[in-house]
Amino acid sequence: MPSEFELIARYFTRPTQHTRLGVGDDGALVSPTPAMELVVSTDMLVAGTHFLPDADAEAVGWKSLAVNVSDLAAMGAQPRWALLAAALPDADELWIAAFAEGFFACAQTFGIDVIGGDTTRGPMNFCVTIFGEVPPGQALLRSGARPGDEIWVSGTPGRAALGLAHLQGRCQLGEAALADCLTALARPQPRLALGLGLRGLASAAIDVSDGLLADLGHILGSSKVSAALQFERLPDTAWRYCPDQALAQDCLLAGGDDYELVFTAPVGAHARVATLAQSLGLALTCIGQIADGAPGKLVLLDREQKPIAAHHHGFDHFA
Amino acid sequence: MPSEFELIARYFTRPTQHTRLGVGDDGALVSPTPAMELVVSTDMLVAGTHFLPDADAEAVGWKSLAVNVSDLAAMGAQPRWALLAAALPDADELWIAAFAEGFFACAQTFGIDVIGGDTTRGPMNFCVTIFGEVPPGQALLRSGARPGDEIWVSGTPGRAALGLAHLQGRCQLGEAALADCLTALARPQPRLALGLGLRGLASAAIDVSDGLLADLGHILGSSKVSAALQFERLPDTAWRYCPDQALAQDCLLAGGDDYELVFTAPVGAHARVATLAQSLGLALTCIGQIADGAPGKLVLLDREQKPIAAHHHGFDHFA
Repeated sequence: MPSEFELIARYFTRPTQHTRLGVGDDGALVSPTPAMELVVSTDMLVAGTHFLPDADAEAVGWKSLAVNVSDLAAMGAQPRWALLAAALPDADELWIAAFAEGFFACAQTFGIDVIGGDTTRGPMNFCVTIFGEVPPGQALLRSGARPGDEIWVSGTPGRAALGLAHLQGRCQLGEAALADCLTALARPQPRLALGLGLRGLASAAIDVSDGLLADLGHILGSSKVSAALQFERLPDTAWRYCPDQALAQDCLLAGGDDYELVFTAPVGAHARVATLAQSLGLALTCIGQIADGAPGKLVLLDREQKPIAAHHHGFDHFA
Repeated sequence: MPSEFELIARYFTRPTQHTRLGVGDDGALVSPTPAMELVVSTDMLVAGTHFLPDADAEAVGWKSLAVNVSDLAAMGAQPRWALLAAALPDADELWIAAFAEGFFACAQTFGIDVIGGDTTRGPMNFCVTIFGEVPPGQALLRSGARPGDEIWVSGTPGRAALGLAHLQGRCQLGEAALADCLTALARPQPRLALGLGLRGLASAAIDVSDGLLADLGHILGSSKVSAALQFERLPDTAWRYCPDQALAQDCLLAGGDDYELVFTAPVGAHARVATLAQSLGLALTCIGQIADGAPGKLVLLDREQKPIAAHHHGFDHFA
């Protein structure tokens, strides 16, 4: 069986592009770009909590890094460096090799140097920390939404949750829908190009990891504003995919794991957001508006502008 | 039971000193000091692997951050910021509060802003990422040892391993020795002042986390040099503490978890190292010399300069 150090050398040490000293010392050494701000985020993925124990290793590797790229996308930051700490129950080399393939595929896609980490024995757990850069003052925060701003969402949220629901036997998706949903679940595409394009355009942003309503709620709380969403404007993919319309709505409004972005922008920026959508080839849908009501309050309105009852809470690990 | 977000707000959000945006967004925002290099390190601590399941929560909190401070000390870097990702089997508030006390006590001791993290459910696991700063080109690397350099060790290694051996019933320490060893095990003191003082003085450095011989071996491997250690010069605390001399030697040579520094320095710097020891009030012992033998080869010599057989390997999580 390979040693801890052989595992690191064999699977987790690859050439870097913009790093002074990578894997192999007590710490890594990098030179930040002068006059840029540093954006840092960390996410921990636990087997059985964040991915099914029998999930494809390459997909778990991709996702471990992708969810961190998504955090930087939501801040409008360019990811540059990442560290990977891994607890593994044993040194299953085939599994580790596939995991590393997925992890480094994501790193290469987004131009990230993997510069260090830690490998230890324990119940399977991957903790990734990512570092990126943003010009001073241009980071997209949760706290910048203002009354009157429009609320936008990228892509078609709810697919990852529908894919999971299918795997858990809670619904039965058609072949094409299933393939689309399982891809969204296993290999999420962080909206980095969108996040970078929203610098100077969006007033606030967040990625949808806990659910559309819950994550929009974080913007409302941080910005101390309220919001009204237009029910009929929501991307309708989840409903089209799933015969169980109540489940579809639940996945759309409260399903996490899609890693789409929800953001706000002034009404005057509407045309520029539409142009950005076109240039990225990515659906950006205006789904509502920020208001100056009770901070954090979120109403869902039907076609006649009457409130719809919706009790969708986001994911809470200790609820 | 408190939610994930209440836990973070209640126990893991404290004012920062040198951070633009801390806990509460998709990422944290910091402004690196102009023209400094950034040193980054991450360590994962798993219950049952790195600490006993019934270990004192405050001590686990202290140690989770302290082992990362030690990595930066070994690089000669000033720690500035840290992130904490935690997997917890349940939301035991008393335990979490004590853990947070220990963690923030360490952060305060070393001037570190805690700027973000992640909280999730799972088998207990703490992953800390730390980053700090060092003037360009002044980081202490493992690769800088040169033939003729003297080899030094700080403090009295082996105490943490002796403390663990006592707890596991493998030896019986006297009262004073036990107290000293348990403190070393539970509340290691990273040698940050030493690491900073060694800038421009040491040619190579590493912290002793896997064992004295194993970690010195990492320097030899990276520097492509050999070394001779003088057995009778090794700090003798472990032997004085423990009647079982074979166990004491094992703890001294192969015990991890002390977080002392092993470093090399040119012979011409001997007096300056001695002066540094005095100014820090910390024992620094010259235990041997680097040579140009087979890269990685390490011999232990007795009083007559005859090799002593020693088969001490460091800790390997998958061995």
